[in-house]
Amino acid sequence: MAHRADRRSKGVPRFPRLVLRLPDWVETALPDPGRVYATAEERMTAVIRLAQLNIERGTGGPLGAGVFDQDAGTLLAPGVNLVVPASCSVAHAEIVAIAISQRMVGCFDLGGQQMPRYELVTSTEPCAMCLGAVTWSGVRRLVCGARDEDARMVGFDEGPKPAGWRQALDARGVSVLVDVCREQAVAVLQRYGRTGGLIYNARQGR
Amino acid sequence: MAHRADRRSKGVPRFPRLVLRLPDWVETALPDPGRVYATAEERMTAVIRLAQLNIERGTGGPLGAGVFDQDAGTLLAPGVNLVVPASCSVAHAEIVAIAISQRMVGCFDLGGQQMPRYELVTSTEPCAMCLGAVTWSGVRRLVCGARDEDARMVGFDEGPKPAGWRQALDARGVSVLVDVCREQAVAVLQRYGRTGGLIYNARQGR
Repeated sequence: MAHRADRRSKGVPRFPRLVLRLPDWVETALPDPGRVYATAEERMTAVIRLAQLNIERGTGGPLGAGVFDQDAGTLLAPGVNLVVPASCSVAHAEIVAIAISQRMVGCFDLGGQQMPRYELVTSTEPCAMCLGAVTWSGVRRLVCGARDEDARMVGFDEGPKPAGWRQALDARGVSVLVDVCREQAVAVLQRYGRTGGLIYNARQGR
Repeated sequence: MAHRADRRSKGVPRFPRLVLRLPDWVETALPDPGRVYATAEERMTAVIRLAQLNIERGTGGPLGAGVFDQDAGTLLAPGVNLVVPASCSVAHAEIVAIAISQRMVGCFDLGGQQMPRYELVTSTEPCAMCLGAVTWSGVRRLVCGARDEDARMVGFDEGPKPAGWRQALDARGVSVLVDVCREQAVAVLQRYGRTGGLIYNARQGR
């Protein structure tokens, strides 16, 4: 109580802001803002590299994502998993990429009129939370590398996703492309598992 | 390109940070950090009031949430829907409450050892995204006011949630209490709908 009163009397807010920022190495790893990633495979290769670098630099889990202009092939914003360093269970790679992209365009809807068609490329199929986030983001396509079962094999938990999640997205105007560079995406997950990377899970009844 | 190059040459990062902060009125509305909300109904009444104030102050949608110490009855951190003002489709009340709470305790897991048992109280049952977020947050209980169908009745979309979502949470060690002050929670949703508040939805195939 005294501590909180002190904070307030000094003008320090009682409730802090949530701040999520990409690690410094991300800009260096993506030096050319005008680069065209012509195919789904090129885009996936780029986000898998982010996942790999995220492990090597020790800045989070083995998961990367990016929002791309589907037609022009340019990257709007990347995302990497920041859960542990940011102390934020929400900071999955997809959430980070979506939120930073929306900040860049200044709108909560990446599917707004007059906007390019955006797509989310993610190194592993989205968990239950990120599946919902895709629905609200405004992206027109979801491109996935490793599958749910690949993530589970390494010990990650994908959460309570509906069985027909691909169809559910499709019915909402978000097409889904899976297994893009799946082997390379799985290799990053497995490397993380082998090197003893922290795998945080839901409570699983514990 | 030139614009981006300018940003970089001035040391401005290419990718902005995501910053989410509660509206200024929230601290004023919750003046006593030590206040004990003894029952689920008292906690729900507090978050419904946040939902109502969020409309009145014009700072977001008609949805409020809060993370409470389940046994002590104190509020760790509140959340309100900030989607439109923050230009962030992820900024649902539950996400905001969870993320700020984790920042306050300095850990991505609100269910860590040595911690009090935390619960998330939300004025409307969580959407697909927030359901997943609850799973990863570490809270031990979810307390809900209005139901999915109440939100849909006003025009909100709850997204692709699995049919057995309550059981899925329970199986993961998160108990679920529903219909707490449901009428009062529904009244706030309806008031928002009647006054022509913006209802943003998923693409719904458009």
